[in-house]
Amino acid sequence: MISMEDALEIVLKQVSVLSSERVKLLSSLGRVLSENIYSDFDIPGFNRAAMDGYAVVAKDTVHACSDRPVTLKVIDEVPAGFKVKSAISSGKAIRIMTGAVLPEGADAVVMVEYTEARGDKVMVFRSVKRGENVSFSGEDVKKGELVLPRGTLIRPQEVGMLAALGKTEVYVTRKPKVAIISTGDELIEPGKTLEKGKIYDSNSFSLFSQVLKCGADPERIGIVPDDKDELLHKVKMGLSSNILLLSGGVSEGKYDLVKEVLMEAGVKPLFWKVAVKPGKPTFFGIKERTLVFGLPGYPVSSMMNFENLVKPAIFKMLGREGYKRIKIRAVLKGEIKNSSGRKNFIRVRLIEENGRCLAIPAPSQKSGVLKSMVWANAVVVLSTDVRKVKNGEEVLVEILD
Amino acid sequence: MISMEDALEIVLKQVSVLSSERVKLLSSLGRVLSENIYSDFDIPGFNRAAMDGYAVVAKDTVHACSDRPVTLKVIDEVPAGFKVKSAISSGKAIRIMTGAVLPEGADAVVMVEYTEARGDKVMVFRSVKRGENVSFSGEDVKKGELVLPRGTLIRPQEVGMLAALGKTEVYVTRKPKVAIISTGDELIEPGKTLEKGKIYDSNSFSLFSQVLKCGADPERIGIVPDDKDELLHKVKMGLSSNILLLSGGVSEGKYDLVKEVLMEAGVKPLFWKVAVKPGKPTFFGIKERTLVFGLPGYPVSSMMNFENLVKPAIFKMLGREGYKRIKIRAVLKGEIKNSSGRKNFIRVRLIEENGRCLAIPAPSQKSGVLKSMVWANAVVVLSTDVRKVKNGEEVLVEILD
Repeated sequence: MISMEDALEIVLKQVSVLSSERVKLLSSLGRVLSENIYSDFDIPGFNRAAMDGYAVVAKDTVHACSDRPVTLKVIDEVPAGFKVKSAISSGKAIRIMTGAVLPEGADAVVMVEYTEARGDKVMVFRSVKRGENVSFSGEDVKKGELVLPRGTLIRPQEVGMLAALGKTEVYVTRKPKVAIISTGDELIEPGKTLEKGKIYDSNSFSLFSQVLKCGADPERIGIVPDDKDELLHKVKMGLSSNILLLSGGVSEGKYDLVKEVLMEAGVKPLFWKVAVKPGKPTFFGIKERTLVFGLPGYPVSSMMNFENLVKPAIFKMLGREGYKRIKIRAVLKGEIKNSSGRKNFIRVRLIEENGRCLAIPAPSQKSGVLKSMVWANAVVVLSTDVRKVKNGEEVLVEILD
Repeated sequence: MISMEDALEIVLKQVSVLSSERVKLLSSLGRVLSENIYSDFDIPGFNRAAMDGYAVVAKDTVHACSDRPVTLKVIDEVPAGFKVKSAISSGKAIRIMTGAVLPEGADAVVMVEYTEARGDKVMVFRSVKRGENVSFSGEDVKKGELVLPRGTLIRPQEVGMLAALGKTEVYVTRKPKVAIISTGDELIEPGKTLEKGKIYDSNSFSLFSQVLKCGADPERIGIVPDDKDELLHKVKMGLSSNILLLSGGVSEGKYDLVKEVLMEAGVKPLFWKVAVKPGKPTFFGIKERTLVFGLPGYPVSSMMNFENLVKPAIFKMLGREGYKRIKIRAVLKGEIKNSSGRKNFIRVRLIEENGRCLAIPAPSQKSGVLKSMVWANAVVVLSTDVRKVKNGEEVLVEILD
């Protein structure tokens, strides 16, 4: 039995970043950049007005105030998006709109609110400093700058930034293919009739969705009964993926065929028990470049070990850097215990109440109670030496969603 | 100029929940349930072994210990998924696997680790209490129970739970259609040649991605120059959606046509200035059931007001209950100021360092600096009366991602 930290290290050692593919910008949300994005130009590419008003020579306005306005001659007008035709010099102004190119000779913009137009003249009621209400060329992005490094997760703002850089397509890491098998004679496909002694398969559905949410490409191979030949056949199908996930059948019982079948399929075992609760019986091995996880059959254990071991592996395959769950302090509302001698992932619901974060443990922490995952949006991770945390004590909460 | 709170209230008052559609379970991730999900049966549907071992009558084991094992006669074996054939009584045991139906007469399971098989007998080295290592019928879900209420966001665990309940399809709220227009003569489509005075349109790309991330259905109508007829034509196209988003052209300048054109298209204005920074010039109106937002042209302002006003509207249309950004306390690393007299959304990057949360403000807080959004994963919301927060002070941070 190894620790979760060691298990994760063993897993990540086997992972390399996948190859790239080119996608359209509007399809890039949630993907991971596989190229460094440099800017070919300044953004903005010119000094521009940051406000609607008048482009002026700042020193002309030094004495302007509400009682004694300075009067300037308005020689032109520049809307955004058009080339400026005129230059100004002392005593002159140009009407200018937000985003428009600052005319030659101008070094500031007086906001329209502090002016009054009078025929071809404008009265200025407030002084401006050099550069005031001007966005300078390169203010957002400088030419040649590394704007988005390889490994960046593309969120809406990165999509916007890529558009601002003029990109229409971008190189991203290929999505890892993840094959999913549920094992066990007790499993029935949802929609079929439930006989006594059977339960509906849920693990392959939650795992499918977890894979999807991580930005990878799930394939549900389906339910396999506890039959060596059939399992071997389906495992061989799954081994063509980047990751093969199985759930169930990883204990030591004589119907727990997963480990045996995986070995027969040529999978090299690297560990098969992790000192965590839930999720102790967890197998990990490799066949060539394919990672193989034998997750526990209990629905909570399967989901939690996906979170702890499979998700970091997927993120590393994607080249996504520096993923960690957000950890925050909260007040425990309820009592939690850990008598397992293992690291314990207590499912909690994190809520905010009068500016305080409260962590409320799921009423049942049993591995078979999927409702505890439905309840939870976070976990409190108890190390092996913590036996108990009392109501009202502070806990460190790791956010799942 | 109205407060953000009032603005949001006005917006949400105009929103009603959209109609439903039926989707396959594996396509339901990220959707919102539009039906209450009750369970038709107990989960598990029978008392079952929670461990591999022997089903026993608990009181037979009362005196069992490592020195003095109790010997029981093994009369049968039950793997998971099969109907139990035999019943037991005092002095008897049945070999049982995790998940298998507890045989009639048995009231506990002895873990295999505390037993030793001897021919058709088993020696038990530890006592068990009634119910020990047994999962009782209905332990996870009870027949008739409301498991997932209407309005629930479907995460991986909800997909798993729906599968466990035997569902293959589910009713979810239809995705709101959101049309997106960028306005301004200065805008160029990414990929085209950039002339002096022009910038690439980024707002429609970031808004498209924000809409997608909220679980709605974006349509990018594209860039419209500052031309009344063309804008009116495109606005009319957009008004067939549930929401129409425009960016740019909402100030008071004579080239700011959005408000005028919207009125001409029959949009009833409800507000058009909000006391926030960034994002003051923000129009909101309705035409029949369509919500119309005129967002500012600055990329940060457009994104932030989407977050603050459009996203809550989309979530309400989806019937998604109780969305709030997660708020956590962090130590400010840097100094922030608010001289705007408006509520100020300071973009920060939240990091964890030695168990402490630090909020590092983006180097530039200007509305035109999209890089501040790329920098940020959270915001510090300064109310109008807070002028300054110093380095090292505690701030409340709202997580964006």
